[in-house]
Amino acid sequence: MEFERVGFEAANLRSIAALAGVSAGTVLHHYGDKRELLHAALFDDLEQTLARALAGLGKGSLEEQLSALTRTVFGYYQRRPQLSRTLLKESLFAEEPWAQRFTAQVGRVHGALAQLAQKASERGELRPNVDGALFAVAYFSFFYFALIAWVQGAHGSPMELVDRLVRQHLEGLRPDPKSRRRKS
Amino acid sequence: MEFERVGFEAANLRSIAALAGVSAGTVLHHYGDKRELLHAALFDDLEQTLARALAGLGKGSLEEQLSALTRTVFGYYQRRPQLSRTLLKESLFAEEPWAQRFTAQVGRVHGALAQLAQKASERGELRPNVDGALFAVAYFSFFYFALIAWVQGAHGSPMELVDRLVRQHLEGLRPDPKSRRRKS
Repeated sequence: MEFERVGFEAANLRSIAALAGVSAGTVLHHYGDKRELLHAALFDDLEQTLARALAGLGKGSLEEQLSALTRTVFGYYQRRPQLSRTLLKESLFAEEPWAQRFTAQVGRVHGALAQLAQKASERGELRPNVDGALFAVAYFSFFYFALIAWVQGAHGSPMELVDRLVRQHLEGLRPDPKSRRRKS
Repeated sequence: MEFERVGFEAANLRSIAALAGVSAGTVLHHYGDKRELLHAALFDDLEQTLARALAGLGKGSLEEQLSALTRTVFGYYQRRPQLSRTLLKESLFAEEPWAQRFTAQVGRVHGALAQLAQKASERGELRPNVDGALFAVAYFSFFYFALIAWVQGAHGSPMELVDRLVRQHLEGLRPDPKSRRRKS
């Protein structure tokens, strides 16, 4: 899209309209302004990316499923390195009505992740009665932290960081009465 | 400050200068623009808040120390509800040279938290040889996620959310060979 080619600040409503084969007035009528257009495009892209990510989780362990999810969604941002910082900034701090729409979008993924944790618990990978909803919030925390660090140039291996944080979260840090085997 | 009274978008260099008893030219000479001034003010405020937070951790458990830290730093944002969204957005997505300064500021707290985890491990609260640096990243993930959710109006009890996420992270979700007592 035009945003990816020239960047958010420089994108011109007239050139966006020209690419779409409509008048700038038509674009303005539908989207109000540039930020509205960016939100609409990102929202649709994420809908497709998240649907694809959730469909492609596979039948592995919870850790493997989350690692696949991280890579699919991260991939969306990695394919647009120029734009990712703006996309993330504008969606995390969206104004209404987009704030609620993005919150609802994240909420749907949250529900799917809570279910994944529930199934992992039923398979015996996790304890019985784990708080899957809270675990899903932890996953989002890790994902967004790594994504922000990456777009700000503060971390080179964001996906591996998410994997390691998820693993530590699943394993916990408390001492075990039966001493676990750890590297010493 | 002027930003808190009228909001970031409306703040006027001339009125900021008038409050400070200097000319707008002097302000511009020192800070370049409004965003630069905001970054400088936030950076200094956070230095003081973080120093106070780290000095006031007390001698309780790691969980209690982190809960106190969360409340001190969150308190800074809660006292300026109008401005918090802008502060967070502009600091998380700062441009250079501020991006590196904020990263270094977070890095110093990261080092202090990794040490806290190390000491908790030595006291037997955590396993031996835990990855304290990774744990500190997990804490930041939880803190920023809750803070973003709060400024976006998506979560009403952000500090309790951080406490619960830290607790789940410490306890882990894996089944224990010796079945732990859990509510069923």
